[in-house]
Amino acid sequence: MLQKYSYSPKLRTGAVVRDIPVTDAPLPYFSLEDGVFSYRMSDDACVYGLGESVRGINKRGWIYEGWCSDDPFHTEDKRSLYGAHNFLLIDGADRFGVFFDYPTRITFDVGYSDPSLLTVTPGKMNLDVYIITGGSLKDIVREFRSLIGKSYIPPLFAFGYGQSRWGYVTEQDITAVADNHEKAGIPLDMIYLDIDYMDSFKDFTVNRERYPDFEGFVKRMRSRGFHLIPIIDAAVKREEGYSVYDEGHEKGFFCTDENGEDYVVGVWPGMSCLPDFLDPEASAWFGEKYRVLTDAGIDGFWNDMNEPALFYSEKALSAAFHDIKGYEGKTLDALSYFSARDVFTRLSNSQKDYESFFHNAPEGRFVHSDVHNLYGYKMTESAMNALKKLRPDEPTLLFSRASYIGAHRSGGIWTGDNHSWWSHILQSLQQMPGLNMCGFLYTGSDIGGFNGACTRDLLLRWLSFAIFTPLMRNHCAIGNRSQEATAFGDTEAFRHIIELRYRLIPYLYGEFLKAAENDEMYFRPLSFDYEDDPAAREIADQLMVGDRLMIAPVYTQNAGGRNIYLPEDMNLIRMSAGEITCEPVSQGRHYVSVPLGDVVFFSKGKLPLADPAKNTASLDFDRLTYIG
Amino acid sequence: MLQKYSYSPKLRTGAVVRDIPVTDAPLPYFSLEDGVFSYRMSDDACVYGLGESVRGINKRGWIYEGWCSDDPFHTEDKRSLYGAHNFLLIDGADRFGVFFDYPTRITFDVGYSDPSLLTVTPGKMNLDVYIITGGSLKDIVREFRSLIGKSYIPPLFAFGYGQSRWGYVTEQDITAVADNHEKAGIPLDMIYLDIDYMDSFKDFTVNRERYPDFEGFVKRMRSRGFHLIPIIDAAVKREEGYSVYDEGHEKGFFCTDENGEDYVVGVWPGMSCLPDFLDPEASAWFGEKYRVLTDAGIDGFWNDMNEPALFYSEKALSAAFHDIKGYEGKTLDALSYFSARDVFTRLSNSQKDYESFFHNAPEGRFVHSDVHNLYGYKMTESAMNALKKLRPDEPTLLFSRASYIGAHRSGGIWTGDNHSWWSHILQSLQQMPGLNMCGFLYTGSDIGGFNGACTRDLLLRWLSFAIFTPLMRNHCAIGNRSQEATAFGDTEAFRHIIELRYRLIPYLYGEFLKAAENDEMYFRPLSFDYEDDPAAREIADQLMVGDRLMIAPVYTQNAGGRNIYLPEDMNLIRMSAGEITCEPVSQGRHYVSVPLGDVVFFSKGKLPLADPAKNTASLDFDRLTYIG
Repeated sequence: MLQKYSYSPKLRTGAVVRDIPVTDAPLPYFSLEDGVFSYRMSDDACVYGLGESVRGINKRGWIYEGWCSDDPFHTEDKRSLYGAHNFLLIDGADRFGVFFDYPTRITFDVGYSDPSLLTVTPGKMNLDVYIITGGSLKDIVREFRSLIGKSYIPPLFAFGYGQSRWGYVTEQDITAVADNHEKAGIPLDMIYLDIDYMDSFKDFTVNRERYPDFEGFVKRMRSRGFHLIPIIDAAVKREEGYSVYDEGHEKGFFCTDENGEDYVVGVWPGMSCLPDFLDPEASAWFGEKYRVLTDAGIDGFWNDMNEPALFYSEKALSAAFHDIKGYEGKTLDALSYFSARDVFTRLSNSQKDYESFFHNAPEGRFVHSDVHNLYGYKMTESAMNALKKLRPDEPTLLFSRASYIGAHRSGGIWTGDNHSWWSHILQSLQQMPGLNMCGFLYTGSDIGGFNGACTRDLLLRWLSFAIFTPLMRNHCAIGNRSQEATAFGDTEAFRHIIELRYRLIPYLYGEFLKAAENDEMYFRPLSFDYEDDPAAREIADQLMVGDRLMIAPVYTQNAGGRNIYLPEDMNLIRMSAGEITCEPVSQGRHYVSVPLGDVVFFSKGKLPLADPAKNTASLDFDRLTYIG
Repeated sequence: MLQKYSYSPKLRTGAVVRDIPVTDAPLPYFSLEDGVFSYRMSDDACVYGLGESVRGINKRGWIYEGWCSDDPFHTEDKRSLYGAHNFLLIDGADRFGVFFDYPTRITFDVGYSDPSLLTVTPGKMNLDVYIITGGSLKDIVREFRSLIGKSYIPPLFAFGYGQSRWGYVTEQDITAVADNHEKAGIPLDMIYLDIDYMDSFKDFTVNRERYPDFEGFVKRMRSRGFHLIPIIDAAVKREEGYSVYDEGHEKGFFCTDENGEDYVVGVWPGMSCLPDFLDPEASAWFGEKYRVLTDAGIDGFWNDMNEPALFYSEKALSAAFHDIKGYEGKTLDALSYFSARDVFTRLSNSQKDYESFFHNAPEGRFVHSDVHNLYGYKMTESAMNALKKLRPDEPTLLFSRASYIGAHRSGGIWTGDNHSWWSHILQSLQQMPGLNMCGFLYTGSDIGGFNGACTRDLLLRWLSFAIFTPLMRNHCAIGNRSQEATAFGDTEAFRHIIELRYRLIPYLYGEFLKAAENDEMYFRPLSFDYEDDPAAREIADQLMVGDRLMIAPVYTQNAGGRNIYLPEDMNLIRMSAGEITCEPVSQGRHYVSVPLGDVVFFSKGKLPLADPAKNTASLDFDRLTYIG
């Protein structure tokens, strides 16, 4: 059963696609007092949900915020990451789902202040709340998903392997990636273009020194089997003569300050303006700009910096230069020194800036801080609405960093700027079910870690998990050690693992399509499939993938294997040096040896396997063998 | 066998206490080329050691530095923490220990650049290298420990529970801690005084507004069973009229710049000078200052900020105010903005500062950067040398943040400013064996985490591990949520766990004394006791504690238990709501249920248990029961 409770929302977020009448029934489960929703959890209650967030699959014991945050340090103490996914699924004495459709900061205290209390606190009482009850955990998710609309389905090539790096600057850099993977026989479908392909970081431009014949290059790479996937950042450089800026400025398509002047923020291109994606006209205008790249043959994009990330605003920076002078020439004690130091560090993504610019939504003018979480979502929607027109015959690959529920209809997301930490393999695994609940099916992490130094063993283990994630991209930041699958000498182990991904695509893509069509989860905690098994309920480092596959990756350095739990008899499938074997394993707990380079997973029935292929285009879906 | 290789050391670090003749034999295992020691590791080789560092018990797969670092973010990517512990123990095709006695930055690439290569790179070829071979892993450790001298043994009360917080300001704050623990019946021996007990952060002063009768307060608290343990920071406030500064300045006991002027750095008290602990006269002078507090009845100290931590130097700060002006009024692109922002953030602990001041060691004048790792060690030595005279009849509790091998003879260490992260329970466990190898037996982590927000379950689980660490202190930083054992409502579970610690002290303290006397490890990886068991070799989250106890703590949020491995038949000992039970468990792998609040560990033989006691003084060592 789906019930809607409405508390004076100020605008339609667009998260929900079904018109549900507001119920007269009293709000179940929660008490509501002084703007705080409170629910007393039973001792055994698991709390699932919250999509892209830190900590385990069971969210109990921490406090989270729905607040799209550009924060690259994904440590346990963070309350929010790039997405705001306000859906919870409680399974204890009560079983229900609840969605707080609220466009800005909302706090979820899941037993942090009081271990048995769940409190949800929107800043203002302007929201819709949906309560979903009845049936299994899967049923509740299906009902919620039917409320928020069908998930984005990418083209098949988006299930291939992608290589990305901030630091590939020229055509030659990109060509070298293609050459190296071809030479090593490592399948590859996509090579990503990070901010350096642009002219001075200006959206919808190409640096012609680095790519003298971009259109030709795109075509040549495509003929070799590689799709080039450029980045689009949210903000538009303020530069007279740059047509995107000139048009946006003239037409009033940028967010403005309290006086109606374009609000100017510093991001990659320096001083820039923020397209007002909440304004339908501005949104349509920005989306149409992708044509520059689709005309050049581009068939996939990633949208970035759309929380929106603000390094600083013009006004705040100028105030900082003034403030810092107040400290000069004085004898600073430690605390004064810290506050001097913070004059500049506190400029980024500041609440004060978010309170200083405005949007023109159909419902009226809104200060950004009241609609913050919609920004990345609406950018994704802007792009996909246009791409459907620009490339009407084929799906376009699109994913985003920031998101809100609703964005899942227009594109995927990646889980942002993580680190080359072993703990981030597990973190990525644990984020998947929560994201799937909220409709984000096309998702994955930066394999190998975006920031920090990747090691050969970390990459092998990370890949061994990530071959099961729909979005499978190796990505890293400038200044770090190279971490391509070809970067660590002996490439055979990498080839075997990535080849396995391609062999599994008939199953994985098939299960993905089923999940998208039927409003189901591609990744599920074991407890969703084995509701009556108390042991399954506690497993936080294994996942069901589609109908008949279970993964249990190794995510610990120097481990030669791991403990696993089988909720029923299954087949253990092992890929070792390219050879795939299968053996039955009985229900229960086992230790499984998984030498570095092997991949081990489990099946509940026959799995189709394609022949090895160098890319998705050459996969033969008609020639399948079966294992398991 | 112990062999010494000497490469023109410029000074005696004091790490080694035995005079070993330099051998004529060629250096085994390592090739030495261009100042880089290289060893080819066998595929199966485990690399133990490196004391206080990140990552697992087996150090393979990362690059570490011996470099005392004030860095509170103990994430996987860090190369160094507060201590420099340059001992490695390799167990593979070869088995040997190696100690690089080198007083400043040295790099250990343990299969990071090349998975099978260990390279060690001191900055300059001025060091001694000791190679230890023959016998078991334990034998090699024993031989190494006999080289570096006996470990510090604290007084019995130091095995009690301690409560600390930066943020207890007044006598009333301290009294409240005592009252709350007494009221809840939670045993407690020590309450720590962080920087706020001092007058303006000046060493060896007491803020008389906050502690009008400090001596009387110390005495009253002692009569209630509580020892007060004040902090001493390394740097001395530059303030004329403050006798410690005046004396140090007049006598030339501070580190100086290239012109012989006192080098001035900003730390807690603001502008401060650094006592030159490498100068024996200065060291003796500083140590004698502890008298102010021992005369007041104090019998324990912690030395802090002795890497030394530098927030900024007077010179660098003034240059920063100049540099920042170069950015003002310009249109900053992103990279220029980042570099403007870093003008202030890069001031702390800068290499440039470390290269700008000097020590007067017996061997001559040294720039700090050439002897950096000795600073905290020599501060600890300064204190303990004096304390032995000031309090000749009883041992004094002393531990430090920064350390180098050698410091283990004078005091313990704690593992610094960690976070309220679940991963830091495991990190702490994994650091213990490496620290023990290097002689640091009296050690432990900030229970509950120093930075960040602790939760009730985190504290319960952390305590359930930390009852086995010799140093058992709950410590947290100002501005965080309270995390005393009395801070989360229902205190019974906390009381039971901490009471268990006290009941185990006869065993734990006894094993500690044995380890100290016999140059053994109190905490050992399982592989040290079960060398022929390949499964034991891989266990990275269990430890042997003393002769007949094994721990396997839960370190995952929302886990109801964990997988464990028993290398032989043992007894499972469970404390549940204060009741202790025992059951035999057979060799092999098991899943053990450990509800929150229970403590589970394993014994190989009878363990003595004392009756519950409210502090160490009331423990009855003659009245023991036996379990297991």
